[in-house]
Amino acid sequence: MKWIKAFAPATIGNIGPGFDVLGLAVKKIGDIVEARKRSSGVKISSIAYAGPNVNLSTDPRKNTAGIAALETLKILNEKGGVELRLKKGLPLGSGLGSSAASAAAAAFAVNHLYGNILTREDLILPATVAEEAVSGAFFADNTAPALLGGATLTRSCVPLDVTRIGSIKKLKIILVTPEMVILTKEARKILPKKIHMKNFIFNMANTALITAAFAKDDYALFSRSLNDVVIEPVRSKLIKGFSKVKENALKAGADGMSISGSGPTLFAITDKLRKARRIEDAMVETFKQFGIKSSHIITEVDSDGARLVT
Amino acid sequence: MKWIKAFAPATIGNIGPGFDVLGLAVKKIGDIVEARKRSSGVKISSIAYAGPNVNLSTDPRKNTAGIAALETLKILNEKGGVELRLKKGLPLGSGLGSSAASAAAAAFAVNHLYGNILTREDLILPATVAEEAVSGAFFADNTAPALLGGATLTRSCVPLDVTRIGSIKKLKIILVTPEMVILTKEARKILPKKIHMKNFIFNMANTALITAAFAKDDYALFSRSLNDVVIEPVRSKLIKGFSKVKENALKAGADGMSISGSGPTLFAITDKLRKARRIEDAMVETFKQFGIKSSHIITEVDSDGARLVT
Repeated sequence: MKWIKAFAPATIGNIGPGFDVLGLAVKKIGDIVEARKRSSGVKISSIAYAGPNVNLSTDPRKNTAGIAALETLKILNEKGGVELRLKKGLPLGSGLGSSAASAAAAAFAVNHLYGNILTREDLILPATVAEEAVSGAFFADNTAPALLGGATLTRSCVPLDVTRIGSIKKLKIILVTPEMVILTKEARKILPKKIHMKNFIFNMANTALITAAFAKDDYALFSRSLNDVVIEPVRSKLIKGFSKVKENALKAGADGMSISGSGPTLFAITDKLRKARRIEDAMVETFKQFGIKSSHIITEVDSDGARLVT
Repeated sequence: MKWIKAFAPATIGNIGPGFDVLGLAVKKIGDIVEARKRSSGVKISSIAYAGPNVNLSTDPRKNTAGIAALETLKILNEKGGVELRLKKGLPLGSGLGSSAASAAAAAFAVNHLYGNILTREDLILPATVAEEAVSGAFFADNTAPALLGGATLTRSCVPLDVTRIGSIKKLKIILVTPEMVILTKEARKILPKKIHMKNFIFNMANTALITAAFAKDDYALFSRSLNDVVIEPVRSKLIKGFSKVKENALKAGADGMSISGSGPTLFAITDKLRKARRIEDAMVETFKQFGIKSSHIITEVDSDGARLVT
């Protein structure tokens, strides 16, 4: 049987104020799932890691790629199975949608192997079911952009209602991942149960503006809307050096900076590549002053989402 | 001195979930301000009412048209004055931005009389200062759409940051104003101080989707996003018959219904004129069953905002 190769990009959950609502796919980094038909069942024959080996399970029921494959076969009402080889391009637990990228790529690959019957939108459900199995929460803010590309908006998860909003061509995104571990479950636990009316209105306005910015491809609008007074003030406490890194990113010319997902990856924005390099340096240097190493990349919006690669 | 005549449309504050964030200008109804130069100061020489005479003050410092005129002259650094004749096309206290329409039309007229130096955006500030003087709160969700037209998004009031989002051409809006009095101040007082995280996310997602819908002229997207779990459940209690009216509006085919501003005007949406008539009938009939008379109109988005008329 012939192998095919599917790629799904890394994603920024939330995009600042849009907690559990907005998501954004980014270029250059993501996961690859190789897949081929087998007579029945799902088998994960290998997992290759980008970073340190973290021992993801090859049991298909304990791995997002495996679960997404199983769920996709189920929706297709398909008795045949798949063999998967997983190539992680994303570090786990970095806040860049690592488990979602694997799930999205696997769902995309399986659908392609079996007649390409489902749409990208259809694949969000099996990928998100897989996400839920490992994260404990049914949220599409990473799976949706990983599949659809660009910025996405999740109105509701049950029933799943996701809209692709669009892209901002000029946008440069600086991703800096400090070497520290943040558990998504912990990062959820510390969130406030209730929000002050004033902060509710503020975050809602900024989220709506970011939506308008991506719908209209308007960088200027985005650049003044990356403000989160609800989640960032709480989650930033889990990231050593956060305030100083943000201060220096803005000083270096960033138009905004926030946490990707539950962190520890931070993302800053600008529309100039030269500025992006300065911002990247400033962020990495500042973490260094706190004794923290970090990996970093300058990227853009991935408008395509999951796709076959050669 | 020659008179000029400026019109500013009625506006729906909030558009459902977008409390203090979204605003929408609507066609067919609004206020007219006639204006001419005078040597100095602002004088309101007459006020004509659409509905019952409610005795708005002709003291320019106690009337939104007068205050907006004074504030606009101040920004223009103009020593000359204006005489105003106010023609209210909007009933007061209906939740359709009556005071904002007067303020917007007056600011627009004064700017036109004195060289048309300011942009529409510039005029939001003086109009909103006028709004604040009578409502006690500095909010641009009515003044901004009255001036800019279409749907608008207020990110912040201080400093004022307002964006015009766009329009939905197919949208039919059914406005039904029951004969009852709701005081904006009272309607603000009963609002919750804190919002549950779940409801925060829900309203934020729906507000962002409405924004995307207006940015993309996408009625289908709007039709499934008019859901407010934060403000409507509280404010609807002030409107006798609300639940039944909403139930019957939806039964008659409306894709959504909510309160305009602090009420009592309700607005329902559809994309078919024939349906709009059925919905209008259902809403008016239902209020009648509660012994409440109502005025009603089927309208559309006013994409132009404040303008000169002849």
